[in-house]
Amino acid sequence: MAGRPTLPAFIQGYGPVTPWDGVGPALGAPRKPRSGRTPRRSATLQDAIAASGLQDGGTVSFHHHLRNGDTLMVETLNTCARMGLRGLHIAPSSIFPCHAGLVPLIEDEIITRITTSYMNGPVADAVGAGRLATPAVLQTHGGRAAAIEDGRLAIDLAMIAAPAVDAAGNITGAIGRSACGPLGYAMVDAGHARHVIAATDMPDQDLPRVCIPSNRIDQIVKLDSLGEAGKIASGTTARQPGPEGDKIAAMTAALIDLTELRRPGFSFQTGAGATSIAVARKLAPLMAARGVCGDFACGGITGPLIEMHKAGLFHELRDVQAFDQIAVQSYARDPLHHGISASDYASPARSDAVAHQLGVVVLGAAEVDRGLNVNVTTTSDGRIIGGSGGHSDVAEGARMTIVTTSLLSKSGPKIMQDVLHRTTPGASIDAVVTEAGVTLISDGWQHAQKPLENAGVPTISRQKLFGDHGDMARSDWPDGRIVAVSEYRDGRIIDVIRAK
Amino acid sequence: MAGRPTLPAFIQGYGPVTPWDGVGPALGAPRKPRSGRTPRRSATLQDAIAASGLQDGGTVSFHHHLRNGDTLMVETLNTCARMGLRGLHIAPSSIFPCHAGLVPLIEDEIITRITTSYMNGPVADAVGAGRLATPAVLQTHGGRAAAIEDGRLAIDLAMIAAPAVDAAGNITGAIGRSACGPLGYAMVDAGHARHVIAATDMPDQDLPRVCIPSNRIDQIVKLDSLGEAGKIASGTTARQPGPEGDKIAAMTAALIDLTELRRPGFSFQTGAGATSIAVARKLAPLMAARGVCGDFACGGITGPLIEMHKAGLFHELRDVQAFDQIAVQSYARDPLHHGISASDYASPARSDAVAHQLGVVVLGAAEVDRGLNVNVTTTSDGRIIGGSGGHSDVAEGARMTIVTTSLLSKSGPKIMQDVLHRTTPGASIDAVVTEAGVTLISDGWQHAQKPLENAGVPTISRQKLFGDHGDMARSDWPDGRIVAVSEYRDGRIIDVIRAK
Repeated sequence: MAGRPTLPAFIQGYGPVTPWDGVGPALGAPRKPRSGRTPRRSATLQDAIAASGLQDGGTVSFHHHLRNGDTLMVETLNTCARMGLRGLHIAPSSIFPCHAGLVPLIEDEIITRITTSYMNGPVADAVGAGRLATPAVLQTHGGRAAAIEDGRLAIDLAMIAAPAVDAAGNITGAIGRSACGPLGYAMVDAGHARHVIAATDMPDQDLPRVCIPSNRIDQIVKLDSLGEAGKIASGTTARQPGPEGDKIAAMTAALIDLTELRRPGFSFQTGAGATSIAVARKLAPLMAARGVCGDFACGGITGPLIEMHKAGLFHELRDVQAFDQIAVQSYARDPLHHGISASDYASPARSDAVAHQLGVVVLGAAEVDRGLNVNVTTTSDGRIIGGSGGHSDVAEGARMTIVTTSLLSKSGPKIMQDVLHRTTPGASIDAVVTEAGVTLISDGWQHAQKPLENAGVPTISRQKLFGDHGDMARSDWPDGRIVAVSEYRDGRIIDVIRAK
Repeated sequence: MAGRPTLPAFIQGYGPVTPWDGVGPALGAPRKPRSGRTPRRSATLQDAIAASGLQDGGTVSFHHHLRNGDTLMVETLNTCARMGLRGLHIAPSSIFPCHAGLVPLIEDEIITRITTSYMNGPVADAVGAGRLATPAVLQTHGGRAAAIEDGRLAIDLAMIAAPAVDAAGNITGAIGRSACGPLGYAMVDAGHARHVIAATDMPDQDLPRVCIPSNRIDQIVKLDSLGEAGKIASGTTARQPGPEGDKIAAMTAALIDLTELRRPGFSFQTGAGATSIAVARKLAPLMAARGVCGDFACGGITGPLIEMHKAGLFHELRDVQAFDQIAVQSYARDPLHHGISASDYASPARSDAVAHQLGVVVLGAAEVDRGLNVNVTTTSDGRIIGGSGGHSDVAEGARMTIVTTSLLSKSGPKIMQDVLHRTTPGASIDAVVTEAGVTLISDGWQHAQKPLENAGVPTISRQKLFGDHGDMARSDWPDGRIVAVSEYRDGRIIDVIRAK
């Protein structure tokens, strides 16, 4: 009786043979737990961290859906410190002023590495002052997802703030005292981390929607609170822009109306700033007047986009993160309000990412230069105030990328010869709208010039915009040690931040 | 005036620097066309192929949503032959009997390489007889998606059968004379091919849903027909299993009812065979009786799953390919009937793939052996009759993978010591259901033994199943030259097919 023949080492016409040997997948996908495993309930955060096997030098991820109300990151890392862990690498999707409690941990080298997509507040200031042992790494939201998915950013422990958990251990951000909408960033972390802990203050709920299924979660731990609910998703929709912002918003809406709104399958993303919200508000009646129902609005989702969806102006919403309570409540109730992962949203490795299907995005800028490079990472004098987040992702992905900015900020000009820090490269920018008018950048959009003029919308050439307003040369390039690097969405380094 | 400082080659604490230089993304995502580009309309298929730049030895992909009604693949490759192209590599997602016209092109070495996920009919027979110049490569549906996304399967030209196209060049399978539902396999091809041609017999339609946006498509060409509509999505739902199949289906439904149906977030996939359909039909009243609304049903979608969704038994459908006209019509109308790409469905590189979130899958088998290896690629005497399709993907991904099979087929025993060809490894199998009863395989499911017995469902141990029915040793291993290789979903080779 002959047994199964062995495989040859080389097959003519095919090549060398890598035999399948049953030991886990080669491409890095975690082997799904089988046979009815459910997450273990752990009594305390410390127990859970101990059971995770986290060691000195390990990498711990967090997500920022609780924004400036999050208390889990500081609580977790203070617990790690008490447990004697040192040299940790933290990989939160963003860092806010509420995370000031990390600064002593940085100084004590409990935390020695930071990889994130955005940082603002005391931690950013500590990094800028060179107090972190290694240069911080700034990634885009999509770049972070790709790095996690392909193994460049390997997470030992993913900590997930879970606003509600059901009896089986599925989790959601749709409901709960700390409800924050879809857990888009945490979905990627949970999918790839070696160990996943979900912390919740609302266990054993019935969930209207599941963000992360129980089979991605190793332990669940109950805490008294995940954060300050009032600061989780602040109400942006009441904010009004000044007269200048209002004028910029009107010109931006007109530009969209005369170009992409006339194409089938319109889709749109904008931010939560006052000017962005004003653009959405001005776009709505134009869409209604034209009878346009766009395919989708995406990104961080705000109340005005919910209103547009309900009014039939967008077929669906693709939401990686809710920006306000109206969006949170819509996510809990509306099946066409889809929660998507950060990878679905913007991974550069996925040509089907939402960012790559996007029609129009309206983005802000701290500085814009003659090469159309945009800085949203630092102030002009070098203070770290943010990072790409999804800026570079959607700027590259969208068909029409519009940057709106005033010519001047309180601290000086925003249009200049060279931005201090290059967050998003100029090649991604299609138009800049300032109070001086609409500047059409790429050759492909010059056809919009005449319709804009006919509609009475002022236009200003790129040459004139930067000649009139952007002639200030920078002479004060910092030359201290490198305190942070900015990775473009594909992982290559687009700029660095140096201590002053 | 100092210009922007250059980047250092190495950053202490970070490592070597790969500077971003603006020349396309490094991770292989195609640069999205910008600035209002729309697909070009080409007069004939030959013009379109010529304009694509396809050359001798190039790789051309196709998708199989039109199943055994597809005429586009043969028409395209006959056109290539007339144009004098040679040595082509074809990469269709599946090959059916309707593709018999490829056999002369294989013999003339117009086609010299084939990569696919399933082949049945004259082309499979020609490959089995060693008439293709190189070994055919069989991939799983998810493995194909991953290979395309990470560049191992580089497509020069993706040919897409587009049942309807709108004025802007967006395409859908939701409507049209050749309506076939979501174009899940083609979504991946279109996302990554160097050049994409959509062929349609219904241009300038209003589309209820877009499967692939216009910015993924280079050319659109109008043909008289894409296929024989009557054969595109045949009616499977009327098929009844025999009494044996009916008994197997009843035991399978009972097994599910006593295990996974009691967990929150139930999800389900089954095939379009008579026994599979019967399982779905028997499961529906059990779900209704328990008040279960499952999260989703997925996979190729059939009429019975549509009925279950409409009856409130599944919240949503995740559909990579419609298997019948009821599913096609549902996709055109129901926003909770989601079209997903083959990558969303089953990429092994994506831990968030639907296959990895799946609760229960019911799969068929041509042969099962004592190692629980399943053959769905060949007959026991070595004729190529299929391939994994999604079999290995969902078998590995699902929490509970059930294989249903009769003990005997017309041509002999189906339970044996060694399957002739290993399509899906035994490690993925949780239970086997035959007319002899339910065999629980993995240790994690032994807890279901007592409830099954209490419910009067016969069970049979693995040892007894293979002792009683699977003692036939195979002595006739083919030893001819290798005519095809089967890649497991991660790209490693799990078995080969040899000429007899």
